[in-house]
Amino acid sequence: MAGTYKYRIEPRDIDATLRARIYSIGDIVLQAAGDDADMLGFGVRDLNSGVGSDGVNASWVLSRMAVDMSRLPSRHEEIAVYTWISDYGRLMTTRNTVVADSSGQQIGAAVTQWAMIDLDTRKALDLSALAGKSASLVDREPPIERPRRLGALSSECALERSHTVVYSDIDFNGHAGSMKYLEWIIDTLPAGVVAGIGNGDADGGGTDDGGGVRFDINYLHEARLGEQLTICVGSDADGDHLFEIRNSEGAAICRAIISAVGTAASIRHK
Amino acid sequence: MAGTYKYRIEPRDIDATLRARIYSIGDIVLQAAGDDADMLGFGVRDLNSGVGSDGVNASWVLSRMAVDMSRLPSRHEEIAVYTWISDYGRLMTTRNTVVADSSGQQIGAAVTQWAMIDLDTRKALDLSALAGKSASLVDREPPIERPRRLGALSSECALERSHTVVYSDIDFNGHAGSMKYLEWIIDTLPAGVVAGIGNGDADGGGTDDGGGVRFDINYLHEARLGEQLTICVGSDADGDHLFEIRNSEGAAICRAIISAVGTAASIRHK
Repeated sequence: MAGTYKYRIEPRDIDATLRARIYSIGDIVLQAAGDDADMLGFGVRDLNSGVGSDGVNASWVLSRMAVDMSRLPSRHEEIAVYTWISDYGRLMTTRNTVVADSSGQQIGAAVTQWAMIDLDTRKALDLSALAGKSASLVDREPPIERPRRLGALSSECALERSHTVVYSDIDFNGHAGSMKYLEWIIDTLPAGVVAGIGNGDADGGGTDDGGGVRFDINYLHEARLGEQLTICVGSDADGDHLFEIRNSEGAAICRAIISAVGTAASIRHK
Repeated sequence: MAGTYKYRIEPRDIDATLRARIYSIGDIVLQAAGDDADMLGFGVRDLNSGVGSDGVNASWVLSRMAVDMSRLPSRHEEIAVYTWISDYGRLMTTRNTVVADSSGQQIGAAVTQWAMIDLDTRKALDLSALAGKSASLVDREPPIERPRRLGALSSECALERSHTVVYSDIDFNGHAGSMKYLEWIIDTLPAGVVAGIGNGDADGGGTDDGGGVRFDINYLHEARLGEQLTICVGSDADGDHLFEIRNSEGAAICRAIISAVGTAASIRHK
């Protein structure tokens, strides 16, 4: 079973270029994921009341995400988001998303990987029971390469910014919302680099790379209200931007990469 | 002429209490204002192309805003926003908004006051020409007291926080979005005070004040990317929270007050 959800790009989703912010697209992808899980009967609200996990007070936790856009939609543009689950592992399930414009043309895609945790013990739950709910599975491969597993930043921070987690960062789960990490990352980049994202120069190298952008993000630990974080920016040999968000003890809580479409990571999209 | 716009409270609109954030309601009110202005033919896009102001490259600028909610809607709740213009002054027009739940019960209201500026000279334009467009006017008084004109903070800052304006703060106008100022303000308050807003203890005094909340905000100067701001929190004799946002030269760029419903400022709502 798969669902299609429609959204309009609203003023608060766009930046000064009048195109959607990359993390607003991420929010729309996650919103569709939530709506679809609700429809299938195992959304956050169902899990909180014990459905699907033997009475355990459970919740979905986003573990990794990749979003790959060939272009960023414009102000008031109507987009359709098509989403389906392709597989359940023991500890992780894969949800796929295709983003289309109003003519049905694909303008982007996303893959998200989710774990289910017991909210009382904060431990991951076995998803084998859900795998039995085969009606929720669609036999269609992810539309882009799955989110990359990102290792520790090997280089020094070329750029660094500190951020204290505030009220507006905290979502319904009581910790920082998934797209807030990406927002902190983008807010750390120089304005000229941000302007190039999804605008023909995603890696900030000054050359036209086709207008697309892809990000991969790995979530390692949650960030809580009042936590002091450091956002560290590095780069790899391809000139892609690498990011690591560290807590006050120096431990990585999140890693990410932002790259122009056309890297190996998104080759299946081409 | 008046318009009605429907919205659903999405995951990104809510906080850990599962109710809408007060500035998300503000964003929805502003979104309806934009949609309605578009429908009437003098939205930001029309103005940018010279409609309604003799070929001048103009834009609406929010000058003052008051939002008064008797309760904050919950996750996935459908709300209807009804909006109309009640008057045009020479330099300012008044737009009114009523927020209703899905049963049609009023749960809040807002009044916004707008100036029109010439984007090239940044000077205010005379609205007399628009006043002639009488079809856009509705002979219905504002549903709550108009936004209060707030004077300089007379007390010392009881609480202070600095903020550098970043990419995520900047909206389609190229400066900080109107609701970002309120977000910075709320992010400055202690968690316990924020939790009481719209939740029976809007002034943080620890006593039940009926569950409502009202904010009044005055915009004095725009905030631009990279600006260093200070958010200063004071209070008045009623225990209401007063706020002033100052730029690096110490000049106030925004003033606001957050109060429990039932103060003199919102008496017409009762």
